[in-house]
Order: sequence, then structure tokens, then C-alpha cells
Amino acid sequence: MQRRKKILVVNPNSNPQVTRNLTEALQPICFDGGPEIECVTMAEGPFGVETQADLESATMPLRRLVAADNSADAFVIACYSDPGLHVCREATQRPVFGIAESGVLTALARGDRFGVIAVAQRSISRHVRYLRQMNLMDRFVGERPLDMSVAEAAAGDSTLARMIEVGRVLKDQDGANVVVMGCAGMSRHRAALEDALGVPVIDPTQAAVAMAVGTVMFQ
Amino acid sequence: MQRRKKILVVNPNSNPQVTRNLTEALQPICFDGGPEIECVTMAEGPFGVETQADLESATMPLRRLVAADNSADAFVIACYSDPGLHVCREATQRPVFGIAESGVLTALARGDRFGVIAVAQRSISRHVRYLRQMNLMDRFVGERPLDMSVAEAAAGDSTLARMIEVGRVLKDQDGANVVVMGCAGMSRHRAALEDALGVPVIDPTQAAVAMAVGTVMFQ
Amino acid sequence: MQRRKKILVVNPNSNPQVTRNLTEALQPICFDGGPEIECVTMAEGPFGVETQADLESATMPLRRLVAADNSADAFVIACYSDPGLHVCREATQRPVFGIAESGVLTALARGDRFGVIAVAQRSISRHVRYLRQMNLMDRFVGERPLDMSVAEAAAGDSTLARMIEVGRVLKDQDGANVVVMGCAGMSRHRAALEDALGVPVIDPTQAAVAMAVGTVMFQ
Amino acid sequence: MQRRKKILVVNPNSNPQVTRNLTEALQPICFDGGPEIECVTMAEGPFGVETQADLESATMPLRRLVAADNSADAFVIACYSDPGLHVCREATQRPVFGIAESGVLTALARGDRFGVIAVAQRSISRHVRYLRQMNLMDRFVGERPLDMSVAEAAAGDSTLARMIEVGRVLKDQDGANVVVMGCAGMSRHRAALEDALGVPVIDPTQAAVAMAVGTVMFQ
Amino acid sequence: MQRRKKILVVNPNSNPQVTRNLTEALQPICFDGGPEIECVTMAEGPFGVETQADLESATMPLRRLVAADNSADAFVIACYSDPGLHVCREATQRPVFGIAESGVLTALARGDRFGVIAVAQRSISRHVRYLRQMNLMDRFVGERPLDMSVAEAAAGDSTLARMIEVGRVLKDQDGANVVVMGCAGMSRHRAALEDALGVPVIDPTQAAVAMAVGTVMFQ
Amino acid sequence: MQRRKKILVVNPNSNPQVTRNLTEALQPICFDGGPEIECVTMAEGPFGVETQADLESATMPLRRLVAADNSADAFVIACYSDPGLHVCREATQRPVFGIAESGVLTALARGDRFGVIAVAQRSISRHVRYLRQMNLMDRFVGERPLDMSVAEAAAGDSTLARMIEVGRVLKDQDGANVVVMGCAGMSRHRAALEDALGVPVIDPTQAAVAMAVGTVMFQ
Repeated sequence: MQRRKKILVVNPNSNPQVTRNLTEALQPICFDGGPEIECVTMAEGPFGVETQADLESATMPLRRLVAADNSADAFVIACYSDPGLHVCREATQRPVFGIAESGVLTALARGDRFGVIAVAQRSISRHVRYLRQMNLMDRFVGERPLDMSVAEAAAGDSTLARMIEVGRVLKDQDGANVVVMGCAGMSRHRAALEDALGVPVIDPTQAAVAMAVGTVMFQ
Repeated sequence: MQRRKKILVVNPNSNPQVTRNLTEALQPICFDGGPEIECVTMAEGPFGVETQADLESATMPLRRLVAADNSADAFVIACYSDPGLHVCREATQRPVFGIAESGVLTALARGDRFGVIAVAQRSISRHVRYLRQMNLMDRFVGERPLDMSVAEAAAGDSTLARMIEVGRVLKDQDGANVVVMGCAGMSRHRAALEDALGVPVIDPTQAAVAMAVGTVMFQ
Repeated sequence: MQRRKKILVVNPNSNPQVTRNLTEALQPICFDGGPEIECVTMAEGPFGVETQADLESATMPLRRLVAADNSADAFVIACYSDPGLHVCREATQRPVFGIAESGVLTALARGDRFGVIAVAQRSISRHVRYLRQMNLMDRFVGERPLDMSVAEAAAGDSTLARMIEVGRVLKDQDGANVVVMGCAGMSRHRAALEDALGVPVIDPTQAAVAMAVGTVMFQ
Repeated sequence: MQRRKKILVVNPNSNPQVTRNLTEALQPICFDGGPEIECVTMAEGPFGVETQADLESATMPLRRLVAADNSADAFVIACYSDPGLHVCREATQRPVFGIAESGVLTALARGDRFGVIAVAQRSISRHVRYLRQMNLMDRFVGERPLDMSVAEAAAGDSTLARMIEVGRVLKDQDGANVVVMGCAGMSRHRAALEDALGVPVIDPTQAAVAMAVGTVMFQ
Repeated sequence: MQRRKKILVVNPNSNPQVTRNLTEALQPICFDGGPEIECVTMAEGPFGVETQADLESATMPLRRLVAADNSADAFVIACYSDPGLHVCREATQRPVFGIAESGVLTALARGDRFGVIAVAQRSISRHVRYLRQMNLMDRFVGERPLDMSVAEAAAGDSTLARMIEVGRVLKDQDGANVVVMGCAGMSRHRAALEDALGVPVIDPTQAAVAMAVGTVMFQ
Repeated sequence: MQRRKKILVVNPNSNPQVTRNLTEALQPICFDGGPEIECVTMAEGPFGVETQADLESATMPLRRLVAADNSADAFVIACYSDPGLHVCREATQRPVFGIAESGVLTALARGDRFGVIAVAQRSISRHVRYLRQMNLMDRFVGERPLDMSVAEAAAGDSTLARMIEVGRVLKDQDGANVVVMGCAGMSRHRAALEDALGVPVIDPTQAAVAMAVGTVMFQ
């Protein structure tokens, strides 16, 4: 009998609350007979990924984590900057998904033109540079910030209201007909945001895990 | 208690053998507690989709099928030309996935440059036009034909050997590091082809259904 | 002695008034010694092409019309969504022109950056998808709607005034230095709109027929 | 009564034989009731346009010719490098067509991917730079030279045979499904080349004049 | 002993004051042991390059100047329209730099997205066409005019204030994080403009001369 | 009196021989009165940068080096993978140049289409991903490997012969008219390679340092 497949979802920051939120957000795709989905905190990571330095400081620890793991059939790096994606892919033959990449690609299956909600302004140049690297700019209408810290966005009661506000500008002014939540920690607002905006809203972690489920189950 | 989610996979051609193959190919992603995945044959469809006329003759029947359905939470159009994708999306608020679109997007999460194996030469211009429409040409290295009829490709013992041969040209000569099988009916060769080529091979139907599973389970 | 060349201009909707307008709009290019230019109504077509479903419902009848015709040396499909263009090209060796394609290409010979006046907002996504398919987005500044029904646009006295208003936004705000009228039924306003805007205005049917005249006369 | 429209076709080189050939090549589109089509030699031009210096030396004389003319309703610059196109457009409100621009745009209405037959290798970089300037590279498969002088190409009996040879490489190896003749002096081989290749062949002068006819007749 | 290298900076207009300003602007890169940098006025040039005709009238004199020169190891054409760049490159094996090309390329080494300050509105279409020719549009956010004549811009006290105003729109509204001064005559404002804007400001002549210095010294 | 400007060239690998070679290669641009150009070895770096892991392991040490430095007016990261470029730019207001970026941009000022000589095959995907990130692919004809280790390439007598061989394929087969040496350690072959190929050859370190000289001297 074949052993159960496993997907390892790595939170590259050292904040365990984010990991608990990921676990909860992924519950709906945990099936009997489906792959095990385990979310782990990377203890060596920065407390949050806000700057380029945060991102870079996570890459080599991620590589070590992936190289040392013997249990997973696929990996998901659960940070919207996809830290270490290519160095992890170099370190293993097993599939490694970045949530930014998977989130944007899934958005392109749901709408013609996508917009992104960022937490903070200063991430946007980095995200756009990454969209250029993936050659996925042609149907991108723009990225707009909540102008909140990651901590505020995670905790605050006003987060959803602000996301709706930003999402409406992406939709009505920039012309997005699908919106990507540009952060690993916004999952619980996805459904409400989609209802409010009237266009599909993509949670990138869920998108990456769905791709990973397909990949490991069809192997 | 919430009713079970359902994904309707529509084979737009009228060949029930293709539908049976689809059902079998999708078995690994049918979970207890997961969505029901039902494959149906579109009786009004052409026997196979080889020409532009075959494709066009399937579009309005697909729209009617989608518009008339009350049971599905998401649809998958299981033909690598994505017939009727936009007219079906116009006909329903529920997500509609085309396997070419989903297959190519999933390939972009697995490799830098993708190649496509077509069944027949004459489909390639149509497929490329569609890649242009999706703006997904920048990382496309080429599409190469098996030079078999859809029927031969489905039946023949030599299909896998020919797929490996074509896949190797895409990889070694064109520079693909991920290969998309450009047909709904090649699923059973995916794993063997991937082993032979040493790069990820994407079955587009499986890719689309994985995206659909994620979409309906996280709603 | 060589027989007279003939161009068949097909109105893919079933509204004969549109066909009569086409006939009138094309009068200036009907020469003694030039090709016969015949405009026909496609009886099986939708009454107007506003939705994706309207477009799709016209494709197979267009193919049949083209395949059955023995008289024409070239065809023009006179609807700004170019329904059935590729399936008609598959059905005949004779040249088939779509007015959207010909109109945009002709615009690119008259100015650096083109804008499009659409009749209705909901056509714009479809038109833009088509511009992407043709890879002609790089010099496109935008498409803006009259926000009128096709019927209103055809009949209303205020149509020209509204076209001038929309054209000015395309020119002054979006930076167009040539404007395409994104509908087969606006021909009679071309000259007045061009005078008002001070930049070339392209009637797509006239553009397509001019290309067709060149093609058949130089054969 | 309206005066007869006139199109002035300027041969920017000083070789009157080329002008005579243009006149002959354009005969089929000279109609009673259509515009007068007059071909003129630019006496101040270089004897042929082979180098960048030839091209540049033609621009200011072309501007003077256009600015001084009071008779034409539209101009066609009949050299495949489109010398002086923008400076002539600056000098007059009347439409000015360049045969390279018009030829390529017309090709895009006849096939998905175009190739170009150049006379000489050294023109190709210049032509490609111009395609980039027009943003029309995405469907370009390549340009290949006859490796003949303009004089040889104009005179030689073997020109057609060599054009067929080069055209076949563009079609079979590069994937062109439409071919542009990249020179003003190849018109008389158009039909034979098209027959031999089995794909549309565009003579750029004829393409530009057809656009010009449409433009002036619909004014 | 090796003779001293020399860079010839050609002011393609006939205004000697512009040449004197260039000489002064380049003083900081004139080193003992470095190449000689000589700025010359092209007497046959237009008094300023504002129109396409001005540009075209400079091309052949530039070619003659370059072809006749026996002293320089590299040339810099010091006009932001890069007149005659390709014809000069055809005329010599020695490197020829255009300041627009060098300025934009250098900007791309300093920021993700560049904007350009033009002197006059009517130059912008020409500059953009040239950016397209160089295929350097993807990171271009826009070009905005001072709406001054070249003479005013050169002389006026209010020039810097107006440059800051325009630069702020490029930065804050268009998203530029590097700004190119789109004229050869703005050098003396570079440092002050950079201080005021808080993003790098590129003087194109200085950028081109720095490239030329590297090229000749490393030969 | 103003203090002398200084450019710090960082060799991100820990091999001091490479640093000595850089110092020697940059000698021609060290002028009295020009900026001091100091080459340093990053002791914490990998011995060479061949893999993605090598690159990633250099990023944070580079950031620390840049952040700790008080002496330099500009930095050059002397590795053709531009490790840590963006994290260093985040760490300082002073200009930071990456040699890959500067080398490719300088190549675009010397030829229409550039090719790259890589040391090893496995670097090419990484380099191409980076070209995509910079949006500089449109004039890229390809990158071809020497198929040598960095050590062999640095030491071997046959390196130049192999570079000429690869460069000729880039030129004759791929169509490059300028070639970039895709490694920091090839400088001493630049002139000989250029002579052999007959097209400009860009040493990326020299290109970056020339840009840096211009930047600091014109401040």
C-alpha cells in the first residue's frame, strides 16, 4: 500500500501565529485520502518579510530546510515574495511552489486582468520586479497598498474594510477583473472580499496548495 | 450541513471513450469529503476536435450545457482548444476552467520555459493564436506534433514512444524545462513521459481539475 | 476576357438595415472596372452582435455561407468582433478579411497610437482579448464606450456628438493620434468625426474593403 | 462636381526604370472614376537605396517634394526602407504611406506569422530596427536575403527562382504563412511567387496604394 | 608610447553656446591621463533640433563629419534625438554613442522605472518612437514636457523650478524612480534636480561620455 | 578642497586571485584626479558563484559590507549574477552597480542584438531569468556556455580559443552583433576576443566601473 502523500507548507517567517492561520486557512483542502498538509514555522526566519533584507535573510534557511526534509512530496513557500524559490528548486527534485507565482497564475485562469492588494507600499517595487521576472506583466493592472504593517493587517478589525476599499480601486479604476491578495496572512478575508467586490479573489496560499495537491496526487 | 461540492468536467466531443478515460485519469483526486467530479460527454459535440470548425461547432452547445446545469459548482472544459470558454463564462457566475489555459499556467509554476506536444500539426497555429490571446508566449519554446490522428494517439501502442521522442526535441533542442501534453486524451502517459524526459510533464485536465478543486473547496 | 472580380461583404447579423448602410458606405469604392462589392445579410445571424454568445452563434453560419459561395474572390466579415474569421479562413483558399483586424492594421498606418470607440462597455473586454490575440496591443491607448445600444448608436441623432466626446477623451487624455470606430454601423459619421477630432478616423469596413480591393485587383 | 482624387507614388531613388515598373505594377488598381495614380522619380535621390546613407540622403528631398506638391490627396513613398516617412508626415496634413509599413500591416491581415524577402543581407538589420520601431515584431519569423544587388534583382532572369528558394525557407523552416517582398521592385514576381509558395505574398507598393485608395475615396 | 585617446562630442546644432555648455558640463570627467574630450559645433546643423525636419537635416552632415575625422577614438552625438546615429555607425568602425540611447540605458542601471523630461510636447512622439525602436519601453513610465522652447530652457531662470515640477509628476504620479533629462542642454541643473526629487537624475551627455571613456580606455 | 571620490568594487567570492585580476583589469580607468577604484574580496563569500545557492549565500554578506562601508561613493558588485543587488540598494543611498546589468545595458549601446558567453551551462537559466526581470530580452539572441568550470576558465590556456569559438556561434548563427562576457574573470581576453570576432565585446566589470566613474565624477 502506498504511503500517504505529504505537502509541507513553510512559513518563512518566525511568527507562529501566521503558521496557525495558514493551518486553519488550508483546512478545507485536507481530505481523508488526500495528502497530509503540514504547516511549519521557519525558526531562523525574520519575524515578518517586509524588506528586501527580510526576504534575502530567509533564502538560505529555506534551502537548508528543504534539503534536510525527507518527508514531503512537495513544498509550498508561504510568503508573497517567494523567498528562496529558485534556490530551493535547485536543492530538491521534488516540486516547490511559491505562493506569489501560483497565486498570479491561478488569477490568470479566473480573469483577464489582475490587480494585487499589497500590505505596504514598499513591497510593490519588489513584487513588480518579480512579475517581470516571471514575464507575467501583460495582464497586470497594478498593485495597491493597504498601507498597514503586516502586524496591523493580520490583527486589525479594519483590515477587511480597507481591503474592500483598495480592491474597488483596482477593479473600478484600474480595470482588474480578478484580485490577488498579496500576502500569506489574508486568507480569512478572501470570501468576504470576493462577495464585496463581485470579482474572483485569489488567496495565494490556497492557490499554491491546490496546485501542489494536484501535483502530488497525480504522480 | 453543507452539500457536497461538484465539479462538472465536460468532454466537448461526442466520443464516450474519451469521457471514460477522463473519469479514470481524474480518479486520484476524488476524495471522500472532496468535491464530486463528474465527467460528461457532450452529445452534440463533434466526434473529435481537430479543426477550427470542430472547435466552433462545440461552442454554443457548451454554452447551453453550462447554462442549463444546476448542479455544478465549477466547470472544466476538457479539450485542449478551450472551445467556448468565454461564452460559457458569460453564461454563468460559476468558475469555468479551460484545460489549455490551466495546463499552461500550471506549467509556468513548474519550469521556466514550456513546450507543448500536439497531436497534429494543423492544431498548432490555433494553439499558438490562443497562447497569444492569453499573453503567455514569452516563456513558450514551441509546440511540436505527434503527427497522429486523435484516434491513433488515443489507441496506439506507439503513442508513448512517439511522445517521448517529441518531448526530447522540445527539451534538448528547444530548451523546454516543462512539457504540456496538448490534448485531453493523453493522461495515462503522463507519469511515464515525465520519467523518460526528466522534466515535469503537465496533463492539462488534471491541472484544471486541481485548480477547480481549490476553487470550490475554499469558497 | 477576364470576368469581373467580386468582394462579398457579409453582415453577420440579420438586420437588413445594417446591410443597406454598408452598401451605402462602400459606394465610393465601387468603380467601373473595379471589383463588384456586394453586401449581404446573414439571415441565420443574431439581430446584433453585442455579447460573446451573439458572436459565437454567428461563426458556423458564416462558415457555411463562405463554403457555399462560388462567386466571390474575397470576403469581408463586417462586424467589429470578427466572428468566425479563422473558421472561414479554414473553409476557403480565398482571402477573408475581418473588419476589426483590417481596421486596426490600417490605423497603424495612420498614427502612432490608436484608440477605439466601442458602442457598449461590455464589448471592450472581448475586443481587447482579440487585440491581444493579434499581438497589436503595444500601440493601443484604450477603448472607450459610447454607452449606447447598437440600435441607439445606429439611429440616434446624438450619436455623432457622443462619438466626438468619446474621441476627444481618447485623443487628449489617452494620447491617441488615430481613432478606430469599433462598429460596422458608424460609417456615415467618419468624416465629421475626423473633422471634429483633427486626427484620422478609421471606418473598419472601409479599411477592410480597401485591402480586399487591393488583394483581388492585384491577383 | 468634385475633382478627381490623386495619389502620388514617389520613387525615392533616381532610377526611372524603377518608376516605370511601379507604374506598370499599379495599373490594375487604376480605375475610371478611381483616383489618379501618378508615379514620379525623385531626381535628387540616390540611384538605389541600399545603405543607411542612401536612405538618409533621400529624406530631406522627399520632404521638399511633399511640401511643394499641391496636387496629391495622398502620398506613397515607394521604397521598402520608408525613407523620410515621419518628416513627410510632419510636412503635410495629407496622408503619407510608407510601403514597408503598409506591406507588413497588410501581411498581418493575411497570415499569422510573416517573413520578409530582402534583396541584400545588409538591409536586414535596418529593416528589423524599423519593425521594432513599429512594434510589429511579435508575429515576425525572420527576414532572409536574395543576396543580389538591387540591380541584379530587378534585371536578372534568375530572380524569381531565387525568391522561391528563399520564400520556401521562410515558410518551411521559419514558419511564415505570409511573405512580404521587401523591395519596391519585385512586383512583377508577386503572383508567380504566391503560386509557387502556396501562401499569400504581399507586394508592399500594391498594399500601400490599396490603403491610399481607400483613404482618399472614403474622404 | 601610446598616444592619448580622444572622444569627439558633436553638437549637431549650429549654436556655439550649446557647445560651450557641453564643454563645461563634461569638465569633471576630463582627467590627466584620461581621454581628451573635445566638443565641436556642427556648423551645417540646424540652430536647434525641435522638429523631425531639424533632426533629418542633421543626419548627412553628421555622417560627413564622422567620416572625415581622423582624430577621434569614439564619437558622441550630443542631441537627445540621436540624429544620424545609425548612418554614422555605418560610416566608421569606431564607436558612436547617441546621448538618448546612452542616457536611457544608464537610467536603467539606476532605477526600475524611468521617466523623461522633454523640453517641448512635440518632441515626445519622436522620442517614444525611438524608445520603441530600441525596445526600451517596458520600464518607461512616461515623458512630460517643460513646454518651453529650447532657447528658453537654456536661458531662463525658471527652468530649474519647472524641471522640478515636471520631475515630481513623473515621480509621484507616473511612478518613475529615475529621471532622464531629455535634452543636451540641461546639464547644469542635474545635481539640483536630483536633490529636489530624491531620485537619480541622468544627464544623457554625461552618461554617453562615461560610456565612451570606458570604451576607449579599455581598448 | 573636495576629497577624492572612491568606487568600491566588491568581488563577492572569497577567491583573492579573482580580486587581483579585477584590479589589473581596471587599471586603465584609474586616473590621477579620477576616482580611486578599490577592489576587495568578500571573505564570507563562496569560493566561486556557480549555483543559485552560491549566489544566495553572498547576498546578506554583501549587504553587511555595503552597510558598514563609510568610504565609497559608489559600489560595483563584480559577479555576473548580480548577487544582492537589490538588497544592497536598499541598504544605502549611494549608487550600486551590478556588472550583469551594466554589461548588458552597455552592450545595447554598441549593437542591435547581444549574445552572452557563459562559463557553464547551468548558469544560463539563472542569467536568462535575470534578463527577464530587467525586461531586456527583446534584443537578446542567446547565451552559450564555454562548458568550463570558473577555475578552468580563469586558468586555462585554451580559454580564449574556446571563447572565440562560442562567440562565433553567437555572431554567425544567433545573429549577435555585440557579445557580453558573462563572467567577472574574463577581462584579459576582451581585446583579443573583439579582434577575432569583429564585433564589440563587452567586459561587464569594465562597463559597470565606467558607469560608476561617470556617476561619481558628475555628482
